[in-house]
Amino acid sequence: MIRAHVPDIVVGRLPIYLRVLNYLLAEGRQITSSQELGDRLGISSAQIRKDLSHFGEFGKQGTGYDVRYLRDQIERILHVDRDWNVVLIGAGDLGHALAHYHRFAENRFNIVGVFDNDPNKIGKPLGKFVIRGMDELEQVIREQNVKMGIIAVPAAAAREVARTLIDYGITALLNYAPITIIAPVGVRVQYIDPVARLQHMAYYIGKENGEES
Amino acid sequence: MIRAHVPDIVVGRLPIYLRVLNYLLAEGRQITSSQELGDRLGISSAQIRKDLSHFGEFGKQGTGYDVRYLRDQIERILHVDRDWNVVLIGAGDLGHALAHYHRFAENRFNIVGVFDNDPNKIGKPLGKFVIRGMDELEQVIREQNVKMGIIAVPAAAAREVARTLIDYGITALLNYAPITIIAPVGVRVQYIDPVARLQHMAYYIGKENGEES
Repeated sequence: MIRAHVPDIVVGRLPIYLRVLNYLLAEGRQITSSQELGDRLGISSAQIRKDLSHFGEFGKQGTGYDVRYLRDQIERILHVDRDWNVVLIGAGDLGHALAHYHRFAENRFNIVGVFDNDPNKIGKPLGKFVIRGMDELEQVIREQNVKMGIIAVPAAAAREVARTLIDYGITALLNYAPITIIAPVGVRVQYIDPVARLQHMAYYIGKENGEES
Repeated sequence: MIRAHVPDIVVGRLPIYLRVLNYLLAEGRQITSSQELGDRLGISSAQIRKDLSHFGEFGKQGTGYDVRYLRDQIERILHVDRDWNVVLIGAGDLGHALAHYHRFAENRFNIVGVFDNDPNKIGKPLGKFVIRGMDELEQVIREQNVKMGIIAVPAAAAREVARTLIDYGITALLNYAPITIIAPVGVRVQYIDPVARLQHMAYYIGKENGEES
């Protein structure tokens, strides 16, 4: 299906819809409505209908959505009805937590290698992985057709790691380092920055506490 | 200063501006421009000027911004020119990584307690903390004037933990569990969901790989 440009903010909500649909399925539910989805997500039902309308017709007026069908369609739209191989760069505290994070594999994002440049770490086990040197990165990416990389190295190293990953053909970077990565066209970057999220909330709760700003 | 409503998306960019200004300061820079900030962040200089204009006049036409002054002003606007006490709920793999995450304290978000409901964990050390039972949570929140909580418990427990935190006076939740929290007015929730971020990127890179959707 060829479709018109979908706003990125709409694409960003699809994983949230997918998640709630999976919870409904797990509860044994067969039919849902934009009203129910909205209530569970704190989003208006009109917004949900509008978001989904970018991708087609998924429900009938008055009968709601078939939970499994809508779930399957959103998986297909997001291209997550398939496995994605992922490399993880950085085997520090954060890399350890990510290597153990079962939700990646549960959602078909399979970490196929953990890499670090620290000679003291290379060759050591990390969960079910053995930490590899960066000199093995290119081969793993090419042989396993990896398109996604997770950056869990310190800020000072992150830009070079990103460049290396992009050179080797990675087109989606999940960056945990607190730096902005300027990527070439065709490469996507998403950020995980808990400090920025706390600062974002401090803006509001400082205000509500009556502090000047 | 009383100011008009600022769009949330603009507020969300302030932490990013703050970060790059801190890097510039660390590099010994005294003056910068919206052009330079934009180049470093992949944002247009016009966008940066427009964002900052919501909060006042921070630079002079032709002379740019004083890095330290602008940094200080953004810290003040975000209310992060002060310490915030934070409680961390959940002492599993993720809780461990978060308890060791030095960027919280570096940015004046001070974890004052790590809590879990698992009797096998309570009383055990976790980095510089001793894991406490949930029965101690209310007292810590009240005595240390905690307004922020980090939820690092499994999805099945997260909603109840959120409710408890809100009951005890927390008004900002950083939620790592893969569920949506419907919070009352006055309570902010931000989400950290790496799976949703990977799914978001899969939409694009699946498409660019020529897959149907």
